[in-house]
Amino acid sequence: MSKRFQIVGIGNAMVDVLAHADDAFLAEHRVEKGIMQLIDMDRGVELYGKIGPAQEISGGSAANTIAGIAHLGGRTAYVGKVKDDQLGAIFAHDLRAQGAVYETALAPKDHPAETGRCIVLVTPDGERSMNTYLGVTEYLAPDDIDEAMMAQAEWIFLEGYRFDGPDSHEAFAKAIQACRGAGGKVSLTLSDPFCIERHRAAFSAMLKDHVDLLFANRAEILSMYETDDFAAALSAAAAEIETVVCTESEHGAHILSGGHRWHVPAVPTKVVDATGAGDLFAGAFLWGLAEGFDLPDCGRMGNIAGAEVISHLGARAEADLKVLFARDGVI
Amino acid sequence: MSKRFQIVGIGNAMVDVLAHADDAFLAEHRVEKGIMQLIDMDRGVELYGKIGPAQEISGGSAANTIAGIAHLGGRTAYVGKVKDDQLGAIFAHDLRAQGAVYETALAPKDHPAETGRCIVLVTPDGERSMNTYLGVTEYLAPDDIDEAMMAQAEWIFLEGYRFDGPDSHEAFAKAIQACRGAGGKVSLTLSDPFCIERHRAAFSAMLKDHVDLLFANRAEILSMYETDDFAAALSAAAAEIETVVCTESEHGAHILSGGHRWHVPAVPTKVVDATGAGDLFAGAFLWGLAEGFDLPDCGRMGNIAGAEVISHLGARAEADLKVLFARDGVI
Repeated sequence: MSKRFQIVGIGNAMVDVLAHADDAFLAEHRVEKGIMQLIDMDRGVELYGKIGPAQEISGGSAANTIAGIAHLGGRTAYVGKVKDDQLGAIFAHDLRAQGAVYETALAPKDHPAETGRCIVLVTPDGERSMNTYLGVTEYLAPDDIDEAMMAQAEWIFLEGYRFDGPDSHEAFAKAIQACRGAGGKVSLTLSDPFCIERHRAAFSAMLKDHVDLLFANRAEILSMYETDDFAAALSAAAAEIETVVCTESEHGAHILSGGHRWHVPAVPTKVVDATGAGDLFAGAFLWGLAEGFDLPDCGRMGNIAGAEVISHLGARAEADLKVLFARDGVI
Repeated sequence: MSKRFQIVGIGNAMVDVLAHADDAFLAEHRVEKGIMQLIDMDRGVELYGKIGPAQEISGGSAANTIAGIAHLGGRTAYVGKVKDDQLGAIFAHDLRAQGAVYETALAPKDHPAETGRCIVLVTPDGERSMNTYLGVTEYLAPDDIDEAMMAQAEWIFLEGYRFDGPDSHEAFAKAIQACRGAGGKVSLTLSDPFCIERHRAAFSAMLKDHVDLLFANRAEILSMYETDDFAAALSAAAAEIETVVCTESEHGAHILSGGHRWHVPAVPTKVVDATGAGDLFAGAFLWGLAEGFDLPDCGRMGNIAGAEVISHLGARAEADLKVLFARDGVI
């Protein structure tokens, strides 16, 4: 276990554009609440013209996870495409400044699309409604996957959102083969119930054959196993995947592995902006796993990290997570 | 007094790049604490490569003031140059989304400089150390000053930082002439002691001949009148300017006008990020003045707005300032 990287993540590289909005605004501008919706540039420009003043903070689901691992001092790298433009430079800076390796080739200046961004509308209840312009991140191709890097990873972490995009499935296949071929393991986050609907067969095949550790929330695992019965969905997942970790918001996290099952209570917190809760949960969990903590402690660290990130605007950790872990006696 | 605009501001259009840093970092990277220092693009790239993860929030001193006035529902416009690039689009969006008119021509895509930005390093004591790459905002020219807009302004508000730049003095002269010629009044903020040193003669001439209302803080007014005696500096300013408003951090604000003098105590607050305190003070003060409040009440509103903006990261108001004014019984 002395590979160069503990975790290498692959996902959609995005800069978040964060603004406050109320439910009436969401209704008037046909933004569906609480989910991720894909938008094109025209819709992005239209919506951006309607929202109030915003803040820009680097985001992207797996990138948030990897930033969290880097924040914790983990050996980690990220793969995801931005363009050679100002937002791309911001994304790259923030990830590297956090300590992650990030070497994906930039889309050139003459690429017709721009760096991806996500207009995140945060309602007074702290819920986030995401409007994603994928831009160049959609074009991550198998050529962007460095097999040597994947072979140097104890774990790879795949973002479900990344199933959208012309060459994404092939790129994932290449990463999985290189990682597993060198003895590494594969983790996946389902990301989003609607993304699962768009790519059900591909998700299903990957879970059966290639995934050692699955991250999901309640809505996602229900969608994945096409049931309304949460216990049944967890059992179905555990039957085909070595370790299943399912978060359930304020009800905490469920961990199923090797015939055992644990429940880890959530950390109570005031929700300012729910963006990134699942991402940081996965980051802290994976870091704990790579550092040799047992599964329930990984879950505890995940819950603490998730609670920190929803207590402020933006999906990257602001407080020192290790201090919080120590305060709660987990490390 | 039913002009189209209550206040039109002219200044350096910037996007702030906000990051946390400690005093050791400032020392190691030769950043002088608590002041604004001009940097070129090379130094900007070097420094950006050293700082931690950042957040991008629209800034610019007079732009923060105008955003505050727009936030309060004032009729206001801003003049300052950005480029046709992603950061320029962010700056323009945030100002317009707040309700300000912003029509300055964009510097074209092939301009060798980029939209201005300011790397703001916030130390644990809440002090901000600003590293400003002016970029295209340096090139605001007399042609960018729309005389009709200036004639439609009850007040124009000039940013002292804007004295840096090849055509800036001429642009200011054009704005002043158009505004005063139509019966409008001129306000100026000194911005920075070092900027005053760079342009002392121009500042001095403008104060004598054209300024009806001066905003300054203690360090600036001492620098302007080349004395260590605060009372003497205030008197010297009041002798040549109709109304002088001087903030003194936690010691509150001093207002001198028509032979009268008031002191308005500061609003106690925990300083998270001092960026924008003076800008928002001026915005609330000017809005109050344009709405017909008396000078001490304008000062109270200024102090409340300044306290709000230093209680969080970023130099634009987040809380509803009118609610805060009403809570304190000022409106």
